[in-house]
Amino acid sequence: MTGGTRPPGRVGPIDATVVPRFGGPSTFARLPTIDQVPEWDIAVVGVPFDSGVTYRPGARFGPSAVRQGSRLLRPYHPELAALPFAEAQVVDAGDIACTPFDIEGAIVQIEAGADALLANGSRLVAIGGDHTVALPLLRSTARRHGPLALVHFDAHLDTWDTYFGQRFTHGTPFRRAWEEGILQKDRSAHVGLRGSLYAESDLSDDASMGFLQITATDVANQGTAAVTHQLLERVADAPVYVSVDIDVLDPAHAPGTGTPEPGGLTSRELLSLLRGLKAAAVVGGDVVEVSPAYDHAEITAIAAAHVFYDLVTVMSRSRAG
Amino acid sequence: MTGGTRPPGRVGPIDATVVPRFGGPSTFARLPTIDQVPEWDIAVVGVPFDSGVTYRPGARFGPSAVRQGSRLLRPYHPELAALPFAEAQVVDAGDIACTPFDIEGAIVQIEAGADALLANGSRLVAIGGDHTVALPLLRSTARRHGPLALVHFDAHLDTWDTYFGQRFTHGTPFRRAWEEGILQKDRSAHVGLRGSLYAESDLSDDASMGFLQITATDVANQGTAAVTHQLLERVADAPVYVSVDIDVLDPAHAPGTGTPEPGGLTSRELLSLLRGLKAAAVVGGDVVEVSPAYDHAEITAIAAAHVFYDLVTVMSRSRAG
Amino acid sequence: MTGGTRPPGRVGPIDATVVPRFGGPSTFARLPTIDQVPEWDIAVVGVPFDSGVTYRPGARFGPSAVRQGSRLLRPYHPELAALPFAEAQVVDAGDIACTPFDIEGAIVQIEAGADALLANGSRLVAIGGDHTVALPLLRSTARRHGPLALVHFDAHLDTWDTYFGQRFTHGTPFRRAWEEGILQKDRSAHVGLRGSLYAESDLSDDASMGFLQITATDVANQGTAAVTHQLLERVADAPVYVSVDIDVLDPAHAPGTGTPEPGGLTSRELLSLLRGLKAAAVVGGDVVEVSPAYDHAEITAIAAAHVFYDLVTVMSRSRAG
Amino acid sequence: MTGGTRPPGRVGPIDATVVPRFGGPSTFARLPTIDQVPEWDIAVVGVPFDSGVTYRPGARFGPSAVRQGSRLLRPYHPELAALPFAEAQVVDAGDIACTPFDIEGAIVQIEAGADALLANGSRLVAIGGDHTVALPLLRSTARRHGPLALVHFDAHLDTWDTYFGQRFTHGTPFRRAWEEGILQKDRSAHVGLRGSLYAESDLSDDASMGFLQITATDVANQGTAAVTHQLLERVADAPVYVSVDIDVLDPAHAPGTGTPEPGGLTSRELLSLLRGLKAAAVVGGDVVEVSPAYDHAEITAIAAAHVFYDLVTVMSRSRAG
Amino acid sequence: MTGGTRPPGRVGPIDATVVPRFGGPSTFARLPTIDQVPEWDIAVVGVPFDSGVTYRPGARFGPSAVRQGSRLLRPYHPELAALPFAEAQVVDAGDIACTPFDIEGAIVQIEAGADALLANGSRLVAIGGDHTVALPLLRSTARRHGPLALVHFDAHLDTWDTYFGQRFTHGTPFRRAWEEGILQKDRSAHVGLRGSLYAESDLSDDASMGFLQITATDVANQGTAAVTHQLLERVADAPVYVSVDIDVLDPAHAPGTGTPEPGGLTSRELLSLLRGLKAAAVVGGDVVEVSPAYDHAEITAIAAAHVFYDLVTVMSRSRAG
Amino acid sequence: MTGGTRPPGRVGPIDATVVPRFGGPSTFARLPTIDQVPEWDIAVVGVPFDSGVTYRPGARFGPSAVRQGSRLLRPYHPELAALPFAEAQVVDAGDIACTPFDIEGAIVQIEAGADALLANGSRLVAIGGDHTVALPLLRSTARRHGPLALVHFDAHLDTWDTYFGQRFTHGTPFRRAWEEGILQKDRSAHVGLRGSLYAESDLSDDASMGFLQITATDVANQGTAAVTHQLLERVADAPVYVSVDIDVLDPAHAPGTGTPEPGGLTSRELLSLLRGLKAAAVVGGDVVEVSPAYDHAEITAIAAAHVFYDLVTVMSRSRAG
Repeated sequence: MTGGTRPPGRVGPIDATVVPRFGGPSTFARLPTIDQVPEWDIAVVGVPFDSGVTYRPGARFGPSAVRQGSRLLRPYHPELAALPFAEAQVVDAGDIACTPFDIEGAIVQIEAGADALLANGSRLVAIGGDHTVALPLLRSTARRHGPLALVHFDAHLDTWDTYFGQRFTHGTPFRRAWEEGILQKDRSAHVGLRGSLYAESDLSDDASMGFLQITATDVANQGTAAVTHQLLERVADAPVYVSVDIDVLDPAHAPGTGTPEPGGLTSRELLSLLRGLKAAAVVGGDVVEVSPAYDHAEITAIAAAHVFYDLVTVMSRSRAG
Repeated sequence: MTGGTRPPGRVGPIDATVVPRFGGPSTFARLPTIDQVPEWDIAVVGVPFDSGVTYRPGARFGPSAVRQGSRLLRPYHPELAALPFAEAQVVDAGDIACTPFDIEGAIVQIEAGADALLANGSRLVAIGGDHTVALPLLRSTARRHGPLALVHFDAHLDTWDTYFGQRFTHGTPFRRAWEEGILQKDRSAHVGLRGSLYAESDLSDDASMGFLQITATDVANQGTAAVTHQLLERVADAPVYVSVDIDVLDPAHAPGTGTPEPGGLTSRELLSLLRGLKAAAVVGGDVVEVSPAYDHAEITAIAAAHVFYDLVTVMSRSRAG
Repeated sequence: MTGGTRPPGRVGPIDATVVPRFGGPSTFARLPTIDQVPEWDIAVVGVPFDSGVTYRPGARFGPSAVRQGSRLLRPYHPELAALPFAEAQVVDAGDIACTPFDIEGAIVQIEAGADALLANGSRLVAIGGDHTVALPLLRSTARRHGPLALVHFDAHLDTWDTYFGQRFTHGTPFRRAWEEGILQKDRSAHVGLRGSLYAESDLSDDASMGFLQITATDVANQGTAAVTHQLLERVADAPVYVSVDIDVLDPAHAPGTGTPEPGGLTSRELLSLLRGLKAAAVVGGDVVEVSPAYDHAEITAIAAAHVFYDLVTVMSRSRAG
Repeated sequence: MTGGTRPPGRVGPIDATVVPRFGGPSTFARLPTIDQVPEWDIAVVGVPFDSGVTYRPGARFGPSAVRQGSRLLRPYHPELAALPFAEAQVVDAGDIACTPFDIEGAIVQIEAGADALLANGSRLVAIGGDHTVALPLLRSTARRHGPLALVHFDAHLDTWDTYFGQRFTHGTPFRRAWEEGILQKDRSAHVGLRGSLYAESDLSDDASMGFLQITATDVANQGTAAVTHQLLERVADAPVYVSVDIDVLDPAHAPGTGTPEPGGLTSRELLSLLRGLKAAAVVGGDVVEVSPAYDHAEITAIAAAHVFYDLVTVMSRSRAG
Repeated sequence: MTGGTRPPGRVGPIDATVVPRFGGPSTFARLPTIDQVPEWDIAVVGVPFDSGVTYRPGARFGPSAVRQGSRLLRPYHPELAALPFAEAQVVDAGDIACTPFDIEGAIVQIEAGADALLANGSRLVAIGGDHTVALPLLRSTARRHGPLALVHFDAHLDTWDTYFGQRFTHGTPFRRAWEEGILQKDRSAHVGLRGSLYAESDLSDDASMGFLQITATDVANQGTAAVTHQLLERVADAPVYVSVDIDVLDPAHAPGTGTPEPGGLTSRELLSLLRGLKAAAVVGGDVVEVSPAYDHAEITAIAAAHVFYDLVTVMSRSRAG
Repeated sequence: MTGGTRPPGRVGPIDATVVPRFGGPSTFARLPTIDQVPEWDIAVVGVPFDSGVTYRPGARFGPSAVRQGSRLLRPYHPELAALPFAEAQVVDAGDIACTPFDIEGAIVQIEAGADALLANGSRLVAIGGDHTVALPLLRSTARRHGPLALVHFDAHLDTWDTYFGQRFTHGTPFRRAWEEGILQKDRSAHVGLRGSLYAESDLSDDASMGFLQITATDVANQGTAAVTHQLLERVADAPVYVSVDIDVLDPAHAPGTGTPEPGGLTSRELLSLLRGLKAAAVVGGDVVEVSPAYDHAEITAIAAAHVFYDLVTVMSRSRAG
């Protein structure tokens, strides 16, 4: 029970044999803050914004909840045989401050915050917040890494056009990203789709933007290995942004979210699919829509923290690393 | 994000781009009430009765909870490629009032309430309430549609004889229905059975009434496609009544119920099995045993609302439609 | 156990000896909807808007929660010896639909919705929603009844100026109302103030707008009779608008709210103070900031429903009635 | 930290310095069961029946919850300077089994169960269950001790006549008791009344049965000492039955109950009033309407356990002892 | 609905048609206590100890919670076609009292308590408490039955060495047992492993102690039948001790535990694996780490009770029986 | 809504108009960490230790919960007319790491941690953790400030001698402190006592150590002003240590604690009493026994944060400041 070996200079999590996990720093995985290390490879950043939601709000408390849920993470990832915090310098960059009262103003603030971080490092992963925050993060990531492939885990398409006349909400980031040319053509996919829609055109419009649609039923019927194969073929060599709406999980696994849909993935399936992306060039990502007021015993926050851990481990290993 | 096309005269759910889902009417799926349309095809009706339960009560609050959990339903069903509220006029008929103090009196009231509704329409689906309510609903449905095949999703057989000397409880409706000649011989099935019993005779008595017994383990081992095939063979051309005790789901998926049994179905499995019934002639049904006091973050109520949505969609499409 | 006597034509709540309280209509106190009666005196209206909050969101679900919590209300008010639903025709006007994405747009919608209702009746009481909604309601009420005295029950002043540059939030409605000339000079009061502030100027600015400041400690030390006397002297003959932020109650009594402050009023104190206003000319009001995701066993929603009941009873009796 | 001195032969609670409170027997206050001692003075008995409720059910789990909540009770009562379990042999008599499906049948079973216990001892105190159970307990107590004075702590009168035609419910036990001549004239009182009623006649009918009506507001305004004085004058020398509906407490103190009403007593007030009855001849009692599904962190169950402890202590000391 | 047939003299659970399940004795499955029968085959014993935990405490309340969750168990096990309480005399032996303040002292007390019970019977199954309690139970079981094969269901290895310098914690029992020669070489297995570790050596150290490592992913990929086959091959003819840390279940199925890890087993998988052990010679076992403060609607406690029931049934049937 | 004026060099909380309260740093009141300022007057420190509890554990998570609950605190205290973070440099010193497995070892670690902090500053206030932590904190404070007067808010005496043979638990810190000569004779007081005891000697032993005993009933009967007067007379000129067990509050106000006792103080009373200590020389203190697993909607954590805020404000103002 000792921390893993790290290259000289790497600062890892606080040692759990000295400071018990229920105490000590409240950074993600008890990692150092960004100002405690001279340089970093991957920064975890919170984006406490939820003014783009259409049903249950509360994801503004997501970053603090996921950090609290990450206290149990340990340094070695057995399924990927990796020591992610030794293979890359991972830091907690705190939260990007943004207004709760003006969606477009907040998007500008988030984009500026991400740009400022990426000016000093290569890769960013964000804890939402609602899915609105993916748009400025995608913009900033694409500015750094070029047009992106998107692997999008979600019950919903999030390629709707407007809602109450508003173009920027948690249901629209990927249509906006597509319109802005941030996403490479035919390199993106949704995974975990399910639930009712407004019309058949929701699907056909989405397909016309070049998204592959993999439903939760597909995952059940085809298995995670086959879906992983599809995803890797899909993204090919493109730089990949992984966006995980925690509602891709079934409400049994993630009650603490805003628009739950039954019939979802198990956490075992989701973690397996994420690990399959180790062969892709993951350059950024987010885990969004954790709404702690609806959580119980932190199960959603802990699931999100593990999703995050797998995402960071994949990034620390991936060809982009 | 616009509502689906509907035949002239059909009244669908309130438009979610005008009235946000967290507000507006509290009818099922925000559909019209029965007195807001001149005629209807399928009526959703609540039966707030739970005096027949043997363990945790509270399903009397099921109708209001499932309606609240149905606010997220949208008009298009992608897996069935259906617009159920356009293909049939679906309405919310409110609740059937009945006494909580007299089980047999309540059964009379429920049966009369169902008869009154069916006098003006063809098909009824009910939100319980405990499983006691299935008996008067079956009686009324059989009076309208003839002897029925029953597809019964439940952890329990519900063909016990008496309990504390009482013949009408949530554990006995299908023995009573069998005795009354409501069910066709060898056309009915239980799906999702599991948990401990009183004696081996529970199973053999049930089998002698002509029920096919499919356990939760069978669903896991054989898969939903094979089970669907079995069910369709079983019901053949008979008019089908679908009764879903929400405890068919594992307690992880449906904590808000009265007699939870571990080892149950996932919501993904249940929804898949329900959709498979689109090839059958479904003429009525119920979703029962949602007990909101034991729910968390509405996950049980939302699961039940989706079960209901799939049931209504299947009915809107089925040969009986 | 029979409903109270009502003047011919008055439609009261559904009879609880016919339809049990856990079933039946989901209108406030199971009253008729606005389209079920030819005319009305007092309309209850929901305003499901919470995009103006600075901490915990969720009050968008307040109207449905308070209506659910109102199922236990009965027709006779013993402490006021009143039959409010017989003395006035009270109706449930449903919810005013408004956008969650644009605060100022929503304020316009709420004001228009209130104006439309007041075109056909005299008095309106609203269920929030966050405290932002008080501003359009005050505007509309003042347009109908003239400049108002405000009796404001709250832990907070709600006379701040801006937050993140935003002038319209749940912390600013009464400063805006004062600036707009809606409030009579020296006729308004806050009751239940407590908790930390940004600076001493929060208090002095507020006082300069002519508010009387009564703290929760004052209520404890002086008693409800003395505070009632102060309030009645304060409002004198002016038309009174009563705005109740449920966080005026201690978090023990109202956990389900957005910015809880310990040291608050008991529900017994609050109800007593409200009843004391029977001698005033109450012409409108609201009960806001019920956030059900943080509630337990509906205690906040039930407290709010009772607050609402007392407010309506006072209105049915008050000189303005 | 050693148990109090007990007369030879008295068996008290399990010693908490040997068996920790979170383990060990699950009897009330970890007292002996009735078959572990040769004779007893006061028996605690559970009555797990809740089929008489009109709103939230669940009090059938009250006995097990209150016993779990009683694990913290210690042998010395400082405010009464008493060692109740040494001054009297107190035992846990388990639960009286009764049917959940037939209210009148259950009443017969409860009455028979109480009679059987009282055949071997003097005094009984019961944990409900809903308030329906008070009627058979009163009958049995009066048969043993003669016509009774009733001190009834409750938000509600519980002297209604019928509900859905049913004469025996949790809202009617004291009217039935009065009709049956079980209660002495002008020796009974309600304490803690509040909330809305069906009509003014609810109060006048009740008064005509000779009940003194003390509201929750009266307790606040007059103080517990004055109310205690009133109660002692009221009951005088009569044998007293104390019936505590836990909803006499404010929902902040007792969320876990079926028909909560804001504006209630604090637990400090209730315990003070109960202790004041040490000067009366208490011969029996009950604590009812604890519904654990609505409780949080056992606060209702723990409050009920303390109410029970004070009631038993008063009985161990009272003149009837 | 009558209890199963039992050999003369066997005392089974209280009859649920006489005493409803929500009332009556609080022993495991409402079985007799150890002093209510002259002799017994299998004793269920609680070990309310949780001072060995490294994250969330609370398993000290596990025994009372699992007993409460076991009220729904009935006498016939359909999947194993067994009447476990008739085939063996099963009793509830209460709780082993031990200090919460001294881990090593508590281990001595637990071992002595187990030895005392095993002096009068053959087989013991324990409800934890945290996993620390497995060590003294293994010692006592091995003293009675010889060196053991261990089938260990858990997310974690529990073969760490020390934590904060402490050799006896909930993370170390099986390394200690191995060191003490209690476990047969190459006859033990972990099932359900997942989550992050401290270092790769955690796995290699464990393997060097002769444990087979089966991950949660292995269970998903290979299915329960194949894993059962592996387990039976592994344990062969050895006397088997089955230790179930409830965190082997996914947090969706068992939120009420101390160190939850996403990606776990479903309850259906776990029960299936347990039933597969009917072909092994199970001589003892435990179900640990149920922490009710983090549970919801008793789903963890009920899952644990069913795990326990299957374990007891397997024991009643197994060759060691 | 701007932060209060601060002397040059003082670093206050993060500005809530730039970084919203639901985001940003997770230090107490969003204050700077100890290494972000050159020197400080008052340090807030967490002590995540709960291995000394006798009933419900979980206070190990108290420091993180109280910090989360402190996000709402603002810089100006109106009732004390103070800007505490401007009048003194207050910092968050993080948590003192200590072992959960060895009570006496942990006490040594806590004392060393406190000594190290006090070597660089004057005054320390701690967030528990259970009440065991008060002993090392008292030792360290007395070493810095001399023998102390203790003002102890608690339902319990905490002057018991041993429990399970253990001399250092959450029930014994003040007897140990008295024995060690840390407390001045006749200068200490308990406030808020209530609930059952083991024997009358609990009280007389305590009195013989020179504690004034003020019960929760005394606070109700005498009022907070009179009790404040008693306390100030009691402590006179002595340096005062204020220890607040959050269970001094009624469970309605603080459900999230380990040994709740009904009949407690309201948060309004407790805050009033704390503010009364502004006239005393407060040199240290703690707020302990917040157990978040039993909390709801953070009401206990928020109450504790406010208690802490008042304590710090009093210290920033007190003669020792």
